Amino acid sequence: MSTGRTAAPSSLLDDHDEHLTPEERELVAAARRFCAGAFSDDLHASYLRGEPFPRDWILRWAEAGFLRLQVEPRHGGHGASFLCKIRVAAEVARHSFAAAFCLNNLQGQATRISRAGSDAQRERLLPGLMAGTVLAAPSMSEPDGGSDLGAVSTVAVPVEDGWSVTGTKTWVTNGTVVDYATMLVRMGDEGAFANLLVPCRDGPTMRREAVAMPGGAHFRLARIELRAHVVPAWGLLDPPGSALRTSMAAVNAARIHVAAMCVGTLHAALCEAVAYAGTRQASGAPILAHQGLQWQLAEVATRLEAASALVLRAARLVDRGRDAMTIAAQCKLFAVDAAIWGVDQCIRSMGAVGASAAHRLGMQLDEVRLAAFADGTNEMMRDRVGRGLARDYAEAPGGGGAA
Amino acid sequence: MSTGRTAAPSSLLDDHDEHLTPEERELVAAARRFCAGAFSDDLHASYLRGEPFPRDWILRWAEAGFLRLQVEPRHGGHGASFLCKIRVAAEVARHSFAAAFCLNNLQGQATRISRAGSDAQRERLLPGLMAGTVLAAPSMSEPDGGSDLGAVSTVAVPVEDGWSVTGTKTWVTNGTVVDYATMLVRMGDEGAFANLLVPCRDGPTMRREAVAMPGGAHFRLARIELRAHVVPAWGLLDPPGSALRTSMAAVNAARIHVAAMCVGTLHAALCEAVAYAGTRQASGAPILAHQGLQWQLAEVATRLEAASALVLRAARLVDRGRDAMTIAAQCKLFAVDAAIWGVDQCIRSMGAVGASAAHRLGMQLDEVRLAAFADGTNEMMRDRVGRGLARDYAEAPGGGGAA
Amino acid sequence: MSTGRTAAPSSLLDDHDEHLTPEERELVAAARRFCAGAFSDDLHASYLRGEPFPRDWILRWAEAGFLRLQVEPRHGGHGASFLCKIRVAAEVARHSFAAAFCLNNLQGQATRISRAGSDAQRERLLPGLMAGTVLAAPSMSEPDGGSDLGAVSTVAVPVEDGWSVTGTKTWVTNGTVVDYATMLVRMGDEGAFANLLVPCRDGPTMRREAVAMPGGAHFRLARIELRAHVVPAWGLLDPPGSALRTSMAAVNAARIHVAAMCVGTLHAALCEAVAYAGTRQASGAPILAHQGLQWQLAEVATRLEAASALVLRAARLVDRGRDAMTIAAQCKLFAVDAAIWGVDQCIRSMGAVGASAAHRLGMQLDEVRLAAFADGTNEMMRDRVGRGLARDYAEAPGGGGAA
Amino acid sequence: MSTGRTAAPSSLLDDHDEHLTPEERELVAAARRFCAGAFSDDLHASYLRGEPFPRDWILRWAEAGFLRLQVEPRHGGHGASFLCKIRVAAEVARHSFAAAFCLNNLQGQATRISRAGSDAQRERLLPGLMAGTVLAAPSMSEPDGGSDLGAVSTVAVPVEDGWSVTGTKTWVTNGTVVDYATMLVRMGDEGAFANLLVPCRDGPTMRREAVAMPGGAHFRLARIELRAHVVPAWGLLDPPGSALRTSMAAVNAARIHVAAMCVGTLHAALCEAVAYAGTRQASGAPILAHQGLQWQLAEVATRLEAASALVLRAARLVDRGRDAMTIAAQCKLFAVDAAIWGVDQCIRSMGAVGASAAHRLGMQLDEVRLAAFADGTNEMMRDRVGRGLARDYAEAPGGGGAA
Repeated sequence: MSTGRTAAPSSLLDDHDEHLTPEERELVAAARRFCAGAFSDDLHASYLRGEPFPRDWILRWAEAGFLRLQVEPRHGGHGASFLCKIRVAAEVARHSFAAAFCLNNLQGQATRISRAGSDAQRERLLPGLMAGTVLAAPSMSEPDGGSDLGAVSTVAVPVEDGWSVTGTKTWVTNGTVVDYATMLVRMGDEGAFANLLVPCRDGPTMRREAVAMPGGAHFRLARIELRAHVVPAWGLLDPPGSALRTSMAAVNAARIHVAAMCVGTLHAALCEAVAYAGTRQASGAPILAHQGLQWQLAEVATRLEAASALVLRAARLVDRGRDAMTIAAQCKLFAVDAAIWGVDQCIRSMGAVGASAAHRLGMQLDEVRLAAFADGTNEMMRDRVGRGLARDYAEAPGGGGAA
Repeated sequence: MSTGRTAAPSSLLDDHDEHLTPEERELVAAARRFCAGAFSDDLHASYLRGEPFPRDWILRWAEAGFLRLQVEPRHGGHGASFLCKIRVAAEVARHSFAAAFCLNNLQGQATRISRAGSDAQRERLLPGLMAGTVLAAPSMSEPDGGSDLGAVSTVAVPVEDGWSVTGTKTWVTNGTVVDYATMLVRMGDEGAFANLLVPCRDGPTMRREAVAMPGGAHFRLARIELRAHVVPAWGLLDPPGSALRTSMAAVNAARIHVAAMCVGTLHAALCEAVAYAGTRQASGAPILAHQGLQWQLAEVATRLEAASALVLRAARLVDRGRDAMTIAAQCKLFAVDAAIWGVDQCIRSMGAVGASAAHRLGMQLDEVRLAAFADGTNEMMRDRVGRGLARDYAEAPGGGGAA
Repeated sequence: MSTGRTAAPSSLLDDHDEHLTPEERELVAAARRFCAGAFSDDLHASYLRGEPFPRDWILRWAEAGFLRLQVEPRHGGHGASFLCKIRVAAEVARHSFAAAFCLNNLQGQATRISRAGSDAQRERLLPGLMAGTVLAAPSMSEPDGGSDLGAVSTVAVPVEDGWSVTGTKTWVTNGTVVDYATMLVRMGDEGAFANLLVPCRDGPTMRREAVAMPGGAHFRLARIELRAHVVPAWGLLDPPGSALRTSMAAVNAARIHVAAMCVGTLHAALCEAVAYAGTRQASGAPILAHQGLQWQLAEVATRLEAASALVLRAARLVDRGRDAMTIAAQCKLFAVDAAIWGVDQCIRSMGAVGASAAHRLGMQLDEVRLAAFADGTNEMMRDRVGRGLARDYAEAPGGGGAA
Repeated sequence: MSTGRTAAPSSLLDDHDEHLTPEERELVAAARRFCAGAFSDDLHASYLRGEPFPRDWILRWAEAGFLRLQVEPRHGGHGASFLCKIRVAAEVARHSFAAAFCLNNLQGQATRISRAGSDAQRERLLPGLMAGTVLAAPSMSEPDGGSDLGAVSTVAVPVEDGWSVTGTKTWVTNGTVVDYATMLVRMGDEGAFANLLVPCRDGPTMRREAVAMPGGAHFRLARIELRAHVVPAWGLLDPPGSALRTSMAAVNAARIHVAAMCVGTLHAALCEAVAYAGTRQASGAPILAHQGLQWQLAEVATRLEAASALVLRAARLVDRGRDAMTIAAQCKLFAVDAAIWGVDQCIRSMGAVGASAAHRLGMQLDEVRLAAFADGTNEMMRDRVGRGLARDYAEAPGGGGAA
């Protein structure tokens, strides 16, 4: 009965195919094909069991080339644009927001090593990261500080041949399975921020624990506690002084990316609701013929398209190297709200069956609700936009005639 | 105290300047300059008196070349793109939604005669229409039918040298001042639709009456009753069989256009609220520094940008000659709601002074609320989107792999 | 064509008639009869002219006994309960929110003199206040302070036989016509707050100016500037030290009262929209038979009833002498939002005709929007509720079992 | 870390304690005590495992007397009022909406047999129903008909000593464990509706299957297929002709009851969020001191109180035997939306931890979302209110003066 396996073209996103290269368009199409079959079914089935999707899919995703999507061509990657990346992610998000988030998260680490890593790091890690045999995750948040990076208290002190790290990180995506965590740490108690590639193996100096997140098993969230855990010398990714800036720089793109996945998920949910409403009968007609339901889903479609237009405009700004701080926050705020509200509307339009295991809208809603917490909450987005109002919405000085 | 006279760049719309020609960019800038001074003040002052803005501004607008904005170059016009046209309209709408609507309405008739008129029509009317000395308005709605064009019952019967027209039209924009109404009529009781250029002079066969619309005097709405009113032979604009199609074809663009003006109005309102909040003190700080107000206006800014992104994407589709029926309805639905809600939020953020005559947000709200009824109500937009759901949000046949 | 003159029973409010005495029920019925005829038509007609309603109606309202509604029986009043008072106000608000607000405002001053005035004040003013021949208004807000009473800077200094008052008040309801303003002042620069009965006659020491409030002429708002304006000795209403407390105590009731009027106005708007939708035809059926419109108005009806239930529960708390600070703020926040949103929905359900002078919903929306600023903005209501969260929504100490 | 075990007094509901008898007030308090301890923890723990709560709690609930809450005193019950019943349910719903729903569902069957059953039925079933050793559930919905009772196609034909029933029911609450289902059937293909007490034992004539409902295991939903399943002669509860009316009569009360539980759940969620916000630090202060968060939760509190006021007013109408059809639908529509939106807001105010297994808000949101489907969807509620608009919001005939 589930219709989640299909792969409808996301009309909106297609609208911007003009900005993709032919190779990029093929990558998007390949992602669509990849997701449409057994992967989609496995995602839903494991969700229903309360388990993360099988790790094997990570390998297959890597085999299909997607973990090197933005890796530089000279390192064996596709060197794809930001727009291509979020188009691929949106295709996966049609089947599971969480899976899209996690697969992209892995890809992002490969890209980062390719772009900013040392030769030693590239040599040791990049082949494995691209092949899916070595997994890595960014790790910034701590239990007491939430997304407030200024509150980071994990400390690294120099030791012979590397650093000794002590502290606790949490909300690490893919955290239960990664081999490395790219961790934001302070170099000494009051020291500058640095990013270290921290090897993850449970033992006397490291303990990791899955974070129980009902409905969110695909995220494989973990809490990681370190006590004098040693990081080898080659593991310094961003030296003191540059790490916070690097981390902050990534966040605008990350927010647009989350918003794009919300659009993909909401689009899939709407298609599923429309398909169901076209066949379900009530009072002698398909419920899709009822004006009330039409208006309900029309409103969903409208917010979907507005979110999509906003996301794609923001993506163009990123690809053109322009400032996207405000619009990134607006994208995330708007798309997350549209998706949470919209998927719920789709479910409700279907009646109780829409929330049952026969459909995947319940999974999508569970996962997209967690999107609200990734890369900054809605509350942080409002702060971000709010603090920029005077700059972004200033009247022209001198009372007009500014043109 | 009023800040309406300023002419802040509409950041969002500026984002799409890349799609305008240099000449078009200059037209937008010229519109901005035109509006920023005395025109803006006159608009507000006449609103406060409950009167339409002085007719003289129509002549000056024409002198500045804007009534020939889209008239074909071979007829003396600028031949501007749709995107350029809505950018100009959005600039005017920063100062008054109604004025923007009315000025563009006049321009639209010039464009129509240029593009679809006969040589005789062009010869008789186009110079005057471009100069603002001859005014014309489209006229479709009737008292009993609302926007349901199928319910049109105004009838034209052939007489010597022309047609005799009987019926009643209403909600005619600029209706109290136009010299001609481009009227949708039936040729005979059950006949095909045609558009006639009906001369408007009160007399025994024609009576026009202003429609009292509190807060909406700038629209100069009129009801026009015709009894055997004679239209000369040269006045046939769209012959039987083509008129309905022509009228329908215009409506998608009109909806995007209304949405664009809503964006312009909301942008101006937000700038005015932000400027006020930056100076007004409460509890020892400008109210713009309060988190509650920041969040309130951040939400306004976010919907504004989403509306803008949607409008501009739709405009691109129009300029590229692609189908825009669904997205046009979504644009109007979303932008009208965003503007009505958002201008009200801006007013409320300012306290009672925001609703007083010292600011123009009250006028903007009054006018933008009437936008909901132009070119189809929100209810019609939901019907439009709703009836297309099965087509627009279909799953790919065959379960994916469609790419 | 207008349907505003009818006097539908407000079903909801009727539900609480059990808490009224028979005499109070008759007062409510008499208010309903009073409003239903020429008064209602005059209110709308003067609104359309941008003018306040004729003063003569104040006298007639007084003749019908309503200015002594809560005056104590020993002073010749009805001694009605708070619930009765807001029921009467809601009846008037069915015809004009602003008129209801202003008439009640006058009545409130009579009640205040009756309850808290000196013998001299009662002797001089009460007969006239009850007869409508002497008008008075409370006056607290100042241009720079808004509703922040701590910012009051109008100063009174003792002079022979009274006080000399200097300062500026604004947003005074009925301010253009009152004979006295009950003004919150400081006794000396840093002095305690007092309330003085300030005689209002324009002259060298007092200047009053109407505040232009588009759509809100019925409020007769004024700004009053005083320079060494003398108040006679008998004019001290609340002595230094008690005035602020008295003013604050009144505000909870005032907020519930505004909310009740919003309910009355929204109820009338809904009835008018339902009546119109029952007669207006589209697609071969009354539009009231269309599911989309039904759902739209059903949502309005639902929020109306929720607002009404909340208001009436709060009123019961007031009449039983219990703390109503939080619920008063919740009432106003909810009812104002419901009314602004709901009246707009009613208008939109009717199409453009709903906003025209043929109906009074446009007037109602203009006036109810100004309700947002009376007795504290929505922003202040959120602050009020927000600061009380820890107290009002505390978990039981000790983990339950508290019962 | 979980705070769900506490049992804060639901201030609002307490407000109506005046309408309860002392014995009823003690029942409410006893329910509060019952839930506050191990029961609450077990509910959450089993939810996290994806399992229904242990059946043993049903027996203990029965031992505490709650399955005979409304059973008539002459049959050994408490004979409690409707208001008492929903107060008890709201107490349970503070800990789990689903548990409250299910326990009340069982109680309802005991009440029904007490009030409407035959002597034989009472003798055979009532002691067990009150003791929790015999479980029963109402069963109306079918796979193809949803909540449209007219579409019921399960058929009973008379056989020796009873009836033979064939058909399929679904969405049966407690369906996986009940001993009897009170089933709405047709007596013959086109026959009148009757209610039969159908014994539920899997076997050749009956097959039941759990309905997989992610997040909703506590509901123990089942689908039941019958093929010539025999019901004994004593099992006729409502004879042909009366059953549909009986079923419909129950639905208004059921809707108010669901709404009351939504209020209980939302109240608990708000208390949990407020408690967390009072301890969680950010930027040097508890987040409860931040204005943005205060406003967010103030809005939740306001809708909560509005929902509560509406529910309790409706309950009073039921207890006074008055028509509650419209207000019941409004209650459910409003309270369900308030709870789904509000619990989500509470979660989001807490950040990701609010959605984790450390708190029970995720469970509450999962369960309350399913409230939307119980006893009629929101869409059906809008239809219900919408079809009654002309009656419920009519203008007074004759233009007023109706009082």
